[in-house]
Amino acid sequence: MKTYINEIKENDNVDSSFLVKEKSSGITKTGNAYLKLKLVDRSGEMEGRIWTSVENFTGTFDKDDFVHAMGKAVSFQEHLQLNINRIEKVGEEQILFSDFFPTTERDVGEMFQSLSEVIDRIKNPYLSKLLHLFWEDESFVKLFKMAPASKWVHHNYLGGLLEHTLSLVQLVLINAAHYDGLNLDLLVTASILHDLGKVEELSYHRSFDYSDEGRLLGHIILGIQKVEDKIRQLPDFPKELSTVLKHLLLSHHGQYMWGSPKRPMTLEAVMLHFLDDMDAKMNGIQQFMRKQVQEGSRWTAYHRTFEQYFYLPGFSVDMQVSDNMYETEITEE
Amino acid sequence: MKTYINEIKENDNVDSSFLVKEKSSGITKTGNAYLKLKLVDRSGEMEGRIWTSVENFTGTFDKDDFVHAMGKAVSFQEHLQLNINRIEKVGEEQILFSDFFPTTERDVGEMFQSLSEVIDRIKNPYLSKLLHLFWEDESFVKLFKMAPASKWVHHNYLGGLLEHTLSLVQLVLINAAHYDGLNLDLLVTASILHDLGKVEELSYHRSFDYSDEGRLLGHIILGIQKVEDKIRQLPDFPKELSTVLKHLLLSHHGQYMWGSPKRPMTLEAVMLHFLDDMDAKMNGIQQFMRKQVQEGSRWTAYHRTFEQYFYLPGFSVDMQVSDNMYETEITEE
Amino acid sequence: MKTYINEIKENDNVDSSFLVKEKSSGITKTGNAYLKLKLVDRSGEMEGRIWTSVENFTGTFDKDDFVHAMGKAVSFQEHLQLNINRIEKVGEEQILFSDFFPTTERDVGEMFQSLSEVIDRIKNPYLSKLLHLFWEDESFVKLFKMAPASKWVHHNYLGGLLEHTLSLVQLVLINAAHYDGLNLDLLVTASILHDLGKVEELSYHRSFDYSDEGRLLGHIILGIQKVEDKIRQLPDFPKELSTVLKHLLLSHHGQYMWGSPKRPMTLEAVMLHFLDDMDAKMNGIQQFMRKQVQEGSRWTAYHRTFEQYFYLPGFSVDMQVSDNMYETEITEE
Amino acid sequence: MKTYINEIKENDNVDSSFLVKEKSSGITKTGNAYLKLKLVDRSGEMEGRIWTSVENFTGTFDKDDFVHAMGKAVSFQEHLQLNINRIEKVGEEQILFSDFFPTTERDVGEMFQSLSEVIDRIKNPYLSKLLHLFWEDESFVKLFKMAPASKWVHHNYLGGLLEHTLSLVQLVLINAAHYDGLNLDLLVTASILHDLGKVEELSYHRSFDYSDEGRLLGHIILGIQKVEDKIRQLPDFPKELSTVLKHLLLSHHGQYMWGSPKRPMTLEAVMLHFLDDMDAKMNGIQQFMRKQVQEGSRWTAYHRTFEQYFYLPGFSVDMQVSDNMYETEITEE
Amino acid sequence: MKTYINEIKENDNVDSSFLVKEKSSGITKTGNAYLKLKLVDRSGEMEGRIWTSVENFTGTFDKDDFVHAMGKAVSFQEHLQLNINRIEKVGEEQILFSDFFPTTERDVGEMFQSLSEVIDRIKNPYLSKLLHLFWEDESFVKLFKMAPASKWVHHNYLGGLLEHTLSLVQLVLINAAHYDGLNLDLLVTASILHDLGKVEELSYHRSFDYSDEGRLLGHIILGIQKVEDKIRQLPDFPKELSTVLKHLLLSHHGQYMWGSPKRPMTLEAVMLHFLDDMDAKMNGIQQFMRKQVQEGSRWTAYHRTFEQYFYLPGFSVDMQVSDNMYETEITEE
Amino acid sequence: MKTYINEIKENDNVDSSFLVKEKSSGITKTGNAYLKLKLVDRSGEMEGRIWTSVENFTGTFDKDDFVHAMGKAVSFQEHLQLNINRIEKVGEEQILFSDFFPTTERDVGEMFQSLSEVIDRIKNPYLSKLLHLFWEDESFVKLFKMAPASKWVHHNYLGGLLEHTLSLVQLVLINAAHYDGLNLDLLVTASILHDLGKVEELSYHRSFDYSDEGRLLGHIILGIQKVEDKIRQLPDFPKELSTVLKHLLLSHHGQYMWGSPKRPMTLEAVMLHFLDDMDAKMNGIQQFMRKQVQEGSRWTAYHRTFEQYFYLPGFSVDMQVSDNMYETEITEE
Repeated sequence: MKTYINEIKENDNVDSSFLVKEKSSGITKTGNAYLKLKLVDRSGEMEGRIWTSVENFTGTFDKDDFVHAMGKAVSFQEHLQLNINRIEKVGEEQILFSDFFPTTERDVGEMFQSLSEVIDRIKNPYLSKLLHLFWEDESFVKLFKMAPASKWVHHNYLGGLLEHTLSLVQLVLINAAHYDGLNLDLLVTASILHDLGKVEELSYHRSFDYSDEGRLLGHIILGIQKVEDKIRQLPDFPKELSTVLKHLLLSHHGQYMWGSPKRPMTLEAVMLHFLDDMDAKMNGIQQFMRKQVQEGSRWTAYHRTFEQYFYLPGFSVDMQVSDNMYETEITEE
Repeated sequence: MKTYINEIKENDNVDSSFLVKEKSSGITKTGNAYLKLKLVDRSGEMEGRIWTSVENFTGTFDKDDFVHAMGKAVSFQEHLQLNINRIEKVGEEQILFSDFFPTTERDVGEMFQSLSEVIDRIKNPYLSKLLHLFWEDESFVKLFKMAPASKWVHHNYLGGLLEHTLSLVQLVLINAAHYDGLNLDLLVTASILHDLGKVEELSYHRSFDYSDEGRLLGHIILGIQKVEDKIRQLPDFPKELSTVLKHLLLSHHGQYMWGSPKRPMTLEAVMLHFLDDMDAKMNGIQQFMRKQVQEGSRWTAYHRTFEQYFYLPGFSVDMQVSDNMYETEITEE
Repeated sequence: MKTYINEIKENDNVDSSFLVKEKSSGITKTGNAYLKLKLVDRSGEMEGRIWTSVENFTGTFDKDDFVHAMGKAVSFQEHLQLNINRIEKVGEEQILFSDFFPTTERDVGEMFQSLSEVIDRIKNPYLSKLLHLFWEDESFVKLFKMAPASKWVHHNYLGGLLEHTLSLVQLVLINAAHYDGLNLDLLVTASILHDLGKVEELSYHRSFDYSDEGRLLGHIILGIQKVEDKIRQLPDFPKELSTVLKHLLLSHHGQYMWGSPKRPMTLEAVMLHFLDDMDAKMNGIQQFMRKQVQEGSRWTAYHRTFEQYFYLPGFSVDMQVSDNMYETEITEE
Repeated sequence: MKTYINEIKENDNVDSSFLVKEKSSGITKTGNAYLKLKLVDRSGEMEGRIWTSVENFTGTFDKDDFVHAMGKAVSFQEHLQLNINRIEKVGEEQILFSDFFPTTERDVGEMFQSLSEVIDRIKNPYLSKLLHLFWEDESFVKLFKMAPASKWVHHNYLGGLLEHTLSLVQLVLINAAHYDGLNLDLLVTASILHDLGKVEELSYHRSFDYSDEGRLLGHIILGIQKVEDKIRQLPDFPKELSTVLKHLLLSHHGQYMWGSPKRPMTLEAVMLHFLDDMDAKMNGIQQFMRKQVQEGSRWTAYHRTFEQYFYLPGFSVDMQVSDNMYETEITEE
Repeated sequence: MKTYINEIKENDNVDSSFLVKEKSSGITKTGNAYLKLKLVDRSGEMEGRIWTSVENFTGTFDKDDFVHAMGKAVSFQEHLQLNINRIEKVGEEQILFSDFFPTTERDVGEMFQSLSEVIDRIKNPYLSKLLHLFWEDESFVKLFKMAPASKWVHHNYLGGLLEHTLSLVQLVLINAAHYDGLNLDLLVTASILHDLGKVEELSYHRSFDYSDEGRLLGHIILGIQKVEDKIRQLPDFPKELSTVLKHLLLSHHGQYMWGSPKRPMTLEAVMLHFLDDMDAKMNGIQQFMRKQVQEGSRWTAYHRTFEQYFYLPGFSVDMQVSDNMYETEITEE
Repeated sequence: MKTYINEIKENDNVDSSFLVKEKSSGITKTGNAYLKLKLVDRSGEMEGRIWTSVENFTGTFDKDDFVHAMGKAVSFQEHLQLNINRIEKVGEEQILFSDFFPTTERDVGEMFQSLSEVIDRIKNPYLSKLLHLFWEDESFVKLFKMAPASKWVHHNYLGGLLEHTLSLVQLVLINAAHYDGLNLDLLVTASILHDLGKVEELSYHRSFDYSDEGRLLGHIILGIQKVEDKIRQLPDFPKELSTVLKHLLLSHHGQYMWGSPKRPMTLEAVMLHFLDDMDAKMNGIQQFMRKQVQEGSRWTAYHRTFEQYFYLPGFSVDMQVSDNMYETEITEE
């Protein structure tokens, strides 16, 4: 069982897995070699030291490896430090990523299943085949279930991309039904694919950052390329459909200034942009509110990206009425 | 029965109502006085002339009056002109505004009834009372049912404000249910009230334009004032609720550049802004597409306000699948 | 008599009033409870400790209270600390706000009197009555005399709002006389009222910050509401006059980007904007120069809001000629 | 005596001066040469024809010459045309520029005299000498009295530069007296010189346009050069004074976007910028209102440069109180 | 031989090829059917009429066809009109595109040969193979030689894309040699490929406009896709090389606002952007100067895209010195 | 010989020159006066102390003087400190500026010679004379050889202005030869003079910063003034040539926002702007890459002025082909 770093107290005997974020060697005043480690998990980080049998351990693991370590927590210069007796590398399959990185609170399998059911309802044969090609691509699916949706602004946790995608698809379904004449198959397909380039734009197996490809090309282009890859396997895919689908992906940021080389030119593209932007902001602000509202205040700290403060009204609980009541009535219409 | 101007042909005997847009007098080469009129209805405009008994008619009606006119359509310099034998002023109650101005295609009574039902479901007693005060204000209700939502960008027809408001309320209901922790009563109330200043910002009894108050203060401020008027009649109305409600109205344009003196600072305000903007654009583009896509092209003309072209995909009909299918499945969840 | 914190030296016996900014309790190594305070006044802040009779004092005052404290200043870890023997809460009426917060250097009573005299000269009966309603509103007047004009950019001290308002009125009087056809009553009234929303936008009884209403609505809207409140008490107040007066308040920031939802559309509004902006900048830069020009340099530090440096020419004293000479001549014309 | 073009009626015998805007020759159907002219003055333009003795007149004047013409006004194709019998070139000294171009309504001599009196009061010997060098430069003075202040936005008439300069100097004098610590000699000098580059930036002897130098360098740089020219004749002129004076000229547009390569960095520069901008806008809007408010409306047409409409309140006359009353009281203080 | 439309005079017998821009049928007053055509070539356009044997010709050609027509030019209502006796459709292979559209003045074959020689010098085997794949793709080469580089701003004539590409490659070669450490193979390859998406972005077989794909995706994305297509045929193509090459294409517009979804992040990308922008502007301004400088002026008309005027110095010829002299000296170094 | 500060180790006896950046006096615990110095050179800075014979040294040198100091390096509180036995002021002529400030790696004399040779090839007699006037101005030449080109963005080292100027001239020569119709003499002259105002804009004899004139007027205006100074000595210098030359200097930043009061209006001005901007960015990024790419990464740190990261492709060395090959081929054409 995982012991979280923020739970460890002085004199605890620790026996748990960690991620090695830094590793270097030193020499004690008495001339002996020792190893200095920085150990992390999702709850925090602490120093680790290996004072004995250094030669047995030093070559067995590296920076960025997951390890299993046993030792005792001691206090040194007002900080806890783990004096390690035994340590060994463990594979990714032996740990839970959610022990090491912030992770969606929702069930990944259920979310993926919900998306799959939406795909099954698509009637347009080309779009249906296209989506199934992605779904049958196991290495893609693995990453798609794991990737965060951004480095820090919104859905910035493992599974965040999937959570945001499902959320957007659901928003698109309910909003598109509100207007006449929209092509729902197109909209749903574009919603599912709109951010898929993020599986390559970000690196998230050890920490969240941009990959080289992510910085140089960006998720919009990476996504277009992946879609083109699959369309190439569908020789009859209509050209106009392909062009319009890519247009929706290209333009979903809405403005040149926000990184879209084209602005939305179809009704579907306009809707996709608004709902994607709204979902990202709603999630981002909700998370920021959870972390950044200080006791005794209804104001968050200053949000650097949005360049403003946010406010949580004080009456939000008392005045809330049942959502169901509204929903029931509305769906009756 | 109304005869529309664009249906009148040379030599027709015309017997119908018109709006007098211009009125002036002239002198024929033979020295006789005559009246020159410009007559309009929703289908177009034409010249009118009164050559005889001018003294009997000249004082009986004015520019901007509705009139009933009888006469014969003749061709003069390649344009049709109505030579009028009889003309008399008619009151607004004798004509249908929809014969003279572009008008919503939806039933105003039904839309208003739908909004009323939503109001009845609001549980917060203060917001409920506030909305009922508006609904009991007959002169407000009359204007609210009649006003367009803008001069030309979106819902620019009689009844457009009501149509846009109902649409936004419905969008808010379905989208708010998608997120946790939103105050639906607040959101619904703000949606209903968000554009109510437009009943005064625009003038629309003879043509669509801005009123003096509209240009000098704008619908956001005019709306805030109207809300404040009603809240004043509710002495116990909580101050924070009043402040946050007004914040939602103030910030619904989303950005300083778009005329909001504050940017959205609560989750409800963020959602209201996105859905309002989306609904305005979706309606505006749909209408623009109806009028501005030329035969043989899938592109609209250049949209001056949005500074771009829009595209109607050619496969929109063929690939459309049943909306119901999606909806049914989704609401099952 | 007030002893200022920056005057206290080691071993001084102190007997003075302070504002309690922070208050918490601790346990000494020997197991006794003590109180830790942070004491502030306009000159600085210092630590305070109550080591004895803690139970007698602890419930008698709170954070954000003004207190009278007696004790001895001792040095602890290179900082002065006040060991307090006696402490008691004092009411606001027993202290001078100017001992605790930066305060205008001008006489508040005289400034208010000058404004009152200007009001007495207004001939327009509606504007005159409107201003008198404000002047007769004692709670408003009290705040209006006390409020700063901003959190930090200009006139950021108690009485700053009044000082800025009077300054603007004087500027308006002399500049309006320079042009033909301006409505002076309107301009003077709008100048007096232009920032009155700041009495609610800012909180300034314990430190300078934005109030909730200030952040959510802003002083422009708060001011419009206050004006509307008073106008409501004057049933004959002409509608166009009310609209144009509010337009001047709304548009006085001049640009959408600076928070005005309307740009100035009348000559009076244009002038009000320029002179208000000029007065704010002149005061803000003058104050910044006083504090931020370092010895041996004529350059200020970098001004974060204005994003630039300012320069004090070195010849400013030597080359200065008598202002009077110019003034006399000009008023002769 | 000048006969204005807009006063000429059919069959009038005309005997007056005009400016020849276009000149070309033609051949009548009967094979005779004739001259086609376009004649203009400040009131309008008309066609001119010389049918006889063409060979006597053709070489005696050119396009852009002033001429004295005698002939008869006839109607041709619904337009008046002047059939000319005699025509001769006249020198600039024989005409009044104000007959041909829009001209200030104020007395140029008096305005110049007012400026001269201000200069005489400057005590700083270097600034005083600098200004006198300009005043003694006859060719400069001639152009300075004649130039407009802009092509079309404000003071766009002969004498407009002088009128704007005097207005700015007066504004500076009254506003600078309102603040402590400003260097009035510096401010007055910079005000007088701030736009002097416009005597070269614009061409205005035949029509208002930009000169080549004006377009390529702009009046700010042209003005700096002229000032540098004169300072060069004053060997003791202090370097810092010269630098700061030039800084005021350089930065008087206030922002990079408005063509100033430096933003105002001294208090004097800040004030100069605001008052110059205010005076230009006040004059520009006043003139626009005179020409562009249509009967029955209080709104101007759309102002292309300012991108908005302007409003003339309807109560401006009735509610106006005596300026003198205010002024008298204020100057007593 | 082609007879150009702007050379045709009244009563000429015409026997030449034209492009049919419009085609419709009418009825003469005597009840006979006739055909109305609008004929164009690169020199202008004229009306065409077929009065006789209409039934023989009407189905043999369509709008947007090239035709060979014989007939007589007559004058009708002050315009020339071609009364056609015989007309027949001709294939594209029978006409010269340069007779119908503006065309580069340089030799297309020679330019292509120059580019080919540069390609032959590329040593990097992957980039070399990539470029040869394009060069071996005949349908691409045909379009690449024919496409203009833009609809109207620069190189807006047939062959313009090739001309601009060659120019950019030459600029890159001489500028890259000036700096250390640049990867010339990468730069040259990116220069050759940077605008290749324009072969699909624009349509230019009948008139210059954007294609549907061009408007919806843009030449940057279309180009990336084409490059990806070819790279897919080179299985060993290094991934980083592919990423960086695409980055250069993506970022060559330099700014988000100018349609690049990424800004240049490598030295090569920075140089490519500057030289591409410079070459486009130099060509665009040179062409604008040729057409838009009016006699007697050194100023062009106002350039709508660049929002300014341009100036041709008057001394450009006289003061020009031999380029060779400079060049010789420099290359000696 | 200079001993660099970063080479000094504990217990070294030091005998070298330094720049005194700070100087103050203190009192030891035993009541003796001592001197505290901060000594700097191009490699770093260290503390200096004079404990003995203080009265002999204290008046012999000042802050910002160069000194020769002898003493011993000791360790105090983990930092090295120089205990000085002897110290004396030395003149600028006795030290090498390159020992104290970052300095170009290229040979200043050779660079200046290269520029001189270009000047000798200019045929236009006025431009030639103008440049020779600068070259004969010894005090100018001395500063021109020494000045950096900016405070920190590019060529920010002694000799940087000369290096950038020569680089730009070479770029201009090779690029101008690529286009027809450019005036090379004008372009070369403007390139040589474009940044000459920087010799006064920056101060660089003790550290790099802006001078008062630099901040108040900027190098563009300072440069124009210097050029005007010299042109004044050439009475026949043609006015249009002078105007256009100054236009090139004024507009070389390309945009209002970047501090140019005019945008480029001639072909030569357009080219000058692009190449100047490119050269500054290429140098700035190259230098940033040298210092700011961390081991194990190909990404630089975040560049605050350019607001982005830069990337050094990993294949840059391996794939590099010979520049000569390209060059040879090209110059053959």
